[in-house]
Amino acid sequence: MSVSSIAFVFPIAGLLGLLLTFYFARVTMSKEVGPPEIAKFSAFIQEGAATFLRREYRVMAIVAVFFAAFLVVTLNVYMMFTFLIGAGTSVLAGYIGMTIATRTNGRTTFAARNGLTHAFDVAFSGGTVLGMAAISLGILGVSSIYLFFSLMKLVPNPLTVLTGYSIGASFAAIFARIGGGIYTKAADVGADLVGKVEVGIPEDDPRNPAVIADNVGDNVGDVAGMGADTYQAYVDTSIAALILGASATSISGTSLGEKGILLPLWILLAGMIGSVLAIVAVKALTHTGKVGPEMLLRLGMVISGGTTLLGVLLLAIFYLGDLRAFYAASSGLIAGVVIGLITDYFTSGRPVDAIARSGESGAATLLITGLAVGMQSATLPMLILGLSMIAAFRAWGIYGIALSGVGLLSILGITLTMDAYGPIADNAGGIAQMTRQHPSIRRITDRLDAAGNTTAAIAKAFAVSATAAAALSLLTAYSEATKVRSLDIRDARVMAGLLIGGAFPALVSSMTLKAVGRTAGLIVAEVRRQFKEIVGLREGKVPPNYQRCIDIATKGALEQLVAPCLIAVAAPFVLVLSLGCEALAGFLGGNIVSGIFLAIFMANAGGAWDNAKKRIEAGAYGGKGSLAHLASVVGDTVGDPLKDTAGPTLNILVELVAAVSLAFVPLFLRFVH
Amino acid sequence: MSVSSIAFVFPIAGLLGLLLTFYFARVTMSKEVGPPEIAKFSAFIQEGAATFLRREYRVMAIVAVFFAAFLVVTLNVYMMFTFLIGAGTSVLAGYIGMTIATRTNGRTTFAARNGLTHAFDVAFSGGTVLGMAAISLGILGVSSIYLFFSLMKLVPNPLTVLTGYSIGASFAAIFARIGGGIYTKAADVGADLVGKVEVGIPEDDPRNPAVIADNVGDNVGDVAGMGADTYQAYVDTSIAALILGASATSISGTSLGEKGILLPLWILLAGMIGSVLAIVAVKALTHTGKVGPEMLLRLGMVISGGTTLLGVLLLAIFYLGDLRAFYAASSGLIAGVVIGLITDYFTSGRPVDAIARSGESGAATLLITGLAVGMQSATLPMLILGLSMIAAFRAWGIYGIALSGVGLLSILGITLTMDAYGPIADNAGGIAQMTRQHPSIRRITDRLDAAGNTTAAIAKAFAVSATAAAALSLLTAYSEATKVRSLDIRDARVMAGLLIGGAFPALVSSMTLKAVGRTAGLIVAEVRRQFKEIVGLREGKVPPNYQRCIDIATKGALEQLVAPCLIAVAAPFVLVLSLGCEALAGFLGGNIVSGIFLAIFMANAGGAWDNAKKRIEAGAYGGKGSLAHLASVVGDTVGDPLKDTAGPTLNILVELVAAVSLAFVPLFLRFVH
Repeated sequence: MSVSSIAFVFPIAGLLGLLLTFYFARVTMSKEVGPPEIAKFSAFIQEGAATFLRREYRVMAIVAVFFAAFLVVTLNVYMMFTFLIGAGTSVLAGYIGMTIATRTNGRTTFAARNGLTHAFDVAFSGGTVLGMAAISLGILGVSSIYLFFSLMKLVPNPLTVLTGYSIGASFAAIFARIGGGIYTKAADVGADLVGKVEVGIPEDDPRNPAVIADNVGDNVGDVAGMGADTYQAYVDTSIAALILGASATSISGTSLGEKGILLPLWILLAGMIGSVLAIVAVKALTHTGKVGPEMLLRLGMVISGGTTLLGVLLLAIFYLGDLRAFYAASSGLIAGVVIGLITDYFTSGRPVDAIARSGESGAATLLITGLAVGMQSATLPMLILGLSMIAAFRAWGIYGIALSGVGLLSILGITLTMDAYGPIADNAGGIAQMTRQHPSIRRITDRLDAAGNTTAAIAKAFAVSATAAAALSLLTAYSEATKVRSLDIRDARVMAGLLIGGAFPALVSSMTLKAVGRTAGLIVAEVRRQFKEIVGLREGKVPPNYQRCIDIATKGALEQLVAPCLIAVAAPFVLVLSLGCEALAGFLGGNIVSGIFLAIFMANAGGAWDNAKKRIEAGAYGGKGSLAHLASVVGDTVGDPLKDTAGPTLNILVELVAAVSLAFVPLFLRFVH
Repeated sequence: MSVSSIAFVFPIAGLLGLLLTFYFARVTMSKEVGPPEIAKFSAFIQEGAATFLRREYRVMAIVAVFFAAFLVVTLNVYMMFTFLIGAGTSVLAGYIGMTIATRTNGRTTFAARNGLTHAFDVAFSGGTVLGMAAISLGILGVSSIYLFFSLMKLVPNPLTVLTGYSIGASFAAIFARIGGGIYTKAADVGADLVGKVEVGIPEDDPRNPAVIADNVGDNVGDVAGMGADTYQAYVDTSIAALILGASATSISGTSLGEKGILLPLWILLAGMIGSVLAIVAVKALTHTGKVGPEMLLRLGMVISGGTTLLGVLLLAIFYLGDLRAFYAASSGLIAGVVIGLITDYFTSGRPVDAIARSGESGAATLLITGLAVGMQSATLPMLILGLSMIAAFRAWGIYGIALSGVGLLSILGITLTMDAYGPIADNAGGIAQMTRQHPSIRRITDRLDAAGNTTAAIAKAFAVSATAAAALSLLTAYSEATKVRSLDIRDARVMAGLLIGGAFPALVSSMTLKAVGRTAGLIVAEVRRQFKEIVGLREGKVPPNYQRCIDIATKGALEQLVAPCLIAVAAPFVLVLSLGCEALAGFLGGNIVSGIFLAIFMANAGGAWDNAKKRIEAGAYGGKGSLAHLASVVGDTVGDPLKDTAGPTLNILVELVAAVSLAFVPLFLRFVH
């Protein structure tokens, strides 16, 4: 395959993006740190988060070394090489994002003294670092590997080695998501169960021994975890599109040549430009001081979505001379936005009211209503995903589906910025509480936090939506590679695979949920112990031992993250060797259906319970201390691990399993045929 | 198609089975009614249940008339005819079973004075009536329609009109399940939330205004609802097998002729004989007085399973001269038994302990652990279903899969007997409490009830397992009829259908869960009102107004059952007309995967929470009144509508949608092609 010199624009764009990332980081770090007490708590969080991540990466590195050796033995050394780069860039993106986020929280608290606008500006700036880091590394990585292997001609088809990169990103992501997810929710649940329910002290009270662990958790879960999660979706989707673009000849009847491969990269570049424009526009609008945080975040999404769509339209007309690319990419982007709006409705609209109201008859009815809302909320998004898939397919066959995924993820720069903004605002509020700032400061950070909750729900919906397109593209690429003639669901092997695959996400979810339960139980015991044994803690005269809770959360997360990760990696091998390639294809299909359903169900049920509690705490249905409030605390606690541990893991699980299946086709074919 | 005279053996067997049903009913009714106070409460329950069923059937009849008219207009008059017979026989089986069950409860309470053996004998006798009624009507109905249309030559292919019978049975079942499910759980939750939690009176206390409604609910839900549920599984599975048996030529390469059609009926007949033998054996063993209730029920299953397997083996050797029938049927039967054992483990083994223990940190952790156990418990059964499907397919192609379903359901006579035994024992305990019998009586009824809980879980697992085989057979028959060339999951239409179908069971579940929540809320308000306004009620001097709670539950169930039923019937039409036949096929596949997963998850999570509460009430983890106990009451209440309303509806939903799709193929083809 020859490469034209225009292709070098992508690694250059990636490098420029990284420069911009460092610029944004410097801007953020130039803000004032504030007084020592703020700096102290911020440093606690920084240190706890960095320590956890380093230990998590060490565990991951050990497993990765074995897996890399396995890749060399079963496939080739280049796959190992790209695998390590994929995992490494994912770690890098998450680490950069989290380092800045944990240094922005205290700065945001301090900036709140100068008003909402200033505080928002700082928090948003901190978020842009993760967003830009992820997309820059993504474009740089994918394009460099493609160019390197095309020019060096080390392998017959340079695209095959990209699957190694894809596995690497998904591999790192599942570790980050499960590890971070167990940590954050064990700490959160543990802190709340004793602090709020038993001792009766407010959220983020410095007397709570688990409060630092809880704030660390927000960062390792929602910044590093979410960053790795969406990074792998970004990388997987574009690699699937590249591979399908190369074979677009056989699919759509017209040969695209190199354009079929470069088009997904061009769309990502358009999205990168759109994201940068949106960031600049949001910052400019922030400085006017006339627009509120919710509106600013929504505007950011609209601006980046609009400019990206325009860019894709121009690409379709002038670069490709074919509007199908526009139709396909926009079907994905529009579906993502609509699903985001639906998520917004179910997690902060009328259904939340129904949940809160049912709390008046106690926790049981509140939970039943929440489960019902969660289930209902998953049905429309799946319908829309189905319809957008058909639209993209009609526009341009299976390549169209891959492009719709790329279109959806192209605006990741801004969605991830908004996502990282959330825990920064949350932490800023926590530090305000811990350092006993004036209530007016706390009101500002609460306002920032509330804006972040909505956008976090939208960003999660984006990640899930992209999964469907990416996984289906990978599944198609898999079946082309295995030359499976038909994946007919009337074939018992395919159907058996569908059933087994349909159960698989639940198996992994049950493991992560149990891990949270176990670790939270240990933290509950430790917090109870400290309140009992440390004289003067309850009165606020003696500080608690924060480190013990951090250690328990770290240990619990690290011990229990390996098993689910290994099961996810091993599943495709077990399936193929025992039941054959058709069963694995069915398994991937079942995984997509169940995984997406459970991911949306868990995310939305958890989000709705969370907001029902907030609504009651704001005074509805009896307000704080009422029966409904107690019920809503139970609901929120049940929802926490669903929405922040088990649910988000499923995107990655679905893509990891599909990426592993695709990458190991050469090995499978040796054994099965 | 010609019919040999041997085929008349099936309607005759069905009639003989009905005679046996009446004999069992007379034996049960010959037991002593007992003193007036027992008769009074039993009569309350009889009347409440009969009134509800009559009103439910009236609502169903109205919808059925419209649907029947639609059948005449769109298909033909014969389909209407078989549809009405299918719905009518389902109603008849449920009504007979429930009439006897509500008259057996008080007799069981009274028999408990003479010891455990006598009480078990009465309760088991009452259960046999539902079991025998369902299988006799099933064999009679399916075989008579087949013979009638074969002999009269009114339609080119007599098997097509059987799909009308199949829809009729599923149609009646979804009404019975949803109506009964909303009624029973709204009454149960409503009774418990005020009675046990707020007022602090024990379960089944006569002062609780909702206590009669609660006991009525057990009958309309677990007797009439479960009877209709398994009746439709029985009918659907055998009809799918008949249809696939007729086309077995094209599938397996060898023509079976009439034998391919009659074989499923022969297997059912073997199962009927096995069930009767097992009933006789259990009764004989009961009279020895040496075997406990749990063991008697398990022995019943083993005896009927063993004799049926033997019968199928003899059929395969002597009638067919082909062992493949034996392999296929036994793969289903064995899978059903293994799944039953797994269910038993997850709902009464070590996982229940883990749930109970996690209650020590409060309701939230108990709920999280229960959700995790429920998810985990669904994965092994789906794996086993997948493997048994592959085994049956390897044995005899898609016909083998249909036969595996028939094999599984052949022993319905005994499983349904065990299932109806459960609410009879439960009610007997309720009447003992309401009439303030001696604690020794209550201990006996508790013992009977505990045995029923385990077998109820096993029977539910059976019903779910059969669904997979039946629905897949119907799906295959559908795609043969529509002549869809391929149902490849790489086709965006099939994949979109999979996604939409994967979300559909959750939509229906969310509707039924909300209906339970709403109706329970009304009952809670009414019970609170009666305790407040009726002077002397709390002291037991003045009786409550039972009728008001019965009316609320009846009204709530009837008003809210129509919408989910209509959605289920309408879905296939919407899918085909908007997205085409391939999308509908994918939809059916997604429905099977999600529906079975959710059905097992909900049933087992609910069962495990129920038993965790019982374990704590028996003294574990602090016993009654402890924090763990309060947590377990919340868990049990959340689990109730999952396991008895939303979960069981899904089997029927999956089969109803598949049956409707198959029956309306002629209409679809007119519109789509």
